[in-house]
Amino acid sequence: MNSPMHEHIVKSFDEEQQRLLQELQRMGDMAAAQLEAALDVIERRDDRAAARIIDNDEAIDTLEHEVSHDVMRLALRGPMARDLREILAALRIAADIERIGDYAANLAKRSLALNLSPPLPQTRGLDALGRLALQQVRDVIAAYRDRDAEAAQRVRARDAELDTLHTGLFRELLTYMMEDARAITPCTHLLFMAKNLERIGDHATNIAENVWFLVHGEGLLPPREKRDAASLPPA
Amino acid sequence: MNSPMHEHIVKSFDEEQQRLLQELQRMGDMAAAQLEAALDVIERRDDRAAARIIDNDEAIDTLEHEVSHDVMRLALRGPMARDLREILAALRIAADIERIGDYAANLAKRSLALNLSPPLPQTRGLDALGRLALQQVRDVIAAYRDRDAEAAQRVRARDAELDTLHTGLFRELLTYMMEDARAITPCTHLLFMAKNLERIGDHATNIAENVWFLVHGEGLLPPREKRDAASLPPA
Repeated sequence: MNSPMHEHIVKSFDEEQQRLLQELQRMGDMAAAQLEAALDVIERRDDRAAARIIDNDEAIDTLEHEVSHDVMRLALRGPMARDLREILAALRIAADIERIGDYAANLAKRSLALNLSPPLPQTRGLDALGRLALQQVRDVIAAYRDRDAEAAQRVRARDAELDTLHTGLFRELLTYMMEDARAITPCTHLLFMAKNLERIGDHATNIAENVWFLVHGEGLLPPREKRDAASLPPA
Repeated sequence: MNSPMHEHIVKSFDEEQQRLLQELQRMGDMAAAQLEAALDVIERRDDRAAARIIDNDEAIDTLEHEVSHDVMRLALRGPMARDLREILAALRIAADIERIGDYAANLAKRSLALNLSPPLPQTRGLDALGRLALQQVRDVIAAYRDRDAEAAQRVRARDAELDTLHTGLFRELLTYMMEDARAITPCTHLLFMAKNLERIGDHATNIAENVWFLVHGEGLLPPREKRDAASLPPA
């Protein structure tokens, strides 16, 4: 097992793995940047910038396909159990980041529809929800980079805050719709945008759980507060 | 390369792969059954049955984790390029099936909220949308089992029908909400349920594209009509 040949394989395997982790970081940074840009265009009501965000999403999807191919090539090198966990986590995290990018692009798409009607006061609440979701994404990508299970655990815990904000905004929008029928169409877009941000938080939580497992193995996760009533909006 | 040893490895590799495909079929059948059950409880307004569907979702999630582990073990056997494509497709299809199961469970959850208010006529339109989505899921799982690229292509083409139905129902719900403020809350649930069904169709389409690539390699897909205006609901 300690032949120079073996040493050589192991070494370049690590190099391959390093490259994979760098790709994932790049994916994560792109998704966070897309989300931040989406929140800005919603505020600025900038259709042209929204269109750019929608186009950029393809780059993240392409990267996700590259990552899953690299992951498989890496698996073909015959890694040990520890590496297998790394590889599975990389695949799942890439998929979660890809979904976050999709939601960011969808936020930009809906901002176009939103801009067809006059600005709504609830856009401020959406922005607050979005900034918290963005922080969650940034923190969990950093936690993955640093293999920091405690930071990942904090992201996971903070998801309850996001759910609370989402539920509050959801109630506020329903009330507003009941008071003013003309606001129903734009508010419906805001409802879906708020839902997208809540889902982004769920994907950040998935990543956080993968980081936890990377560090602690397939052990039990610490209990977590859930406030979103199983993703069911208030009736 | 034709040593008995190699023969042996290749043979049991195929056996492993067969088992993996059976697991995926089981996953697909479970997701389709969950979706059908969800459509039934929406119609019957049966809270107890809805709770069962929500509980069952965990079984699909567990199966998806098993599949991704088996896929990795399979990759460790050092397959050839063709097998690599099989393995990557299996991973992606498992993830899509898992998402379809999630949406089915979410439909069941929202049916609970829906049952807090009197029945709405649009539930019929939702059911029509749901039956089409269910057919798409069943057809694409069969296309994967039979490696039938043409059947997969038909599923992919039929997604435009689903998008049209979804857009129509969306418009109908918005109008209804504008006419009757008391209907806003239940209609909001129907809007999200319709969206879930449209997303289930998108995942069926993803699976169809993976089947196409399995049969024809990473070649170009035939063009496809998109009617949902990039998943943007009518404003």
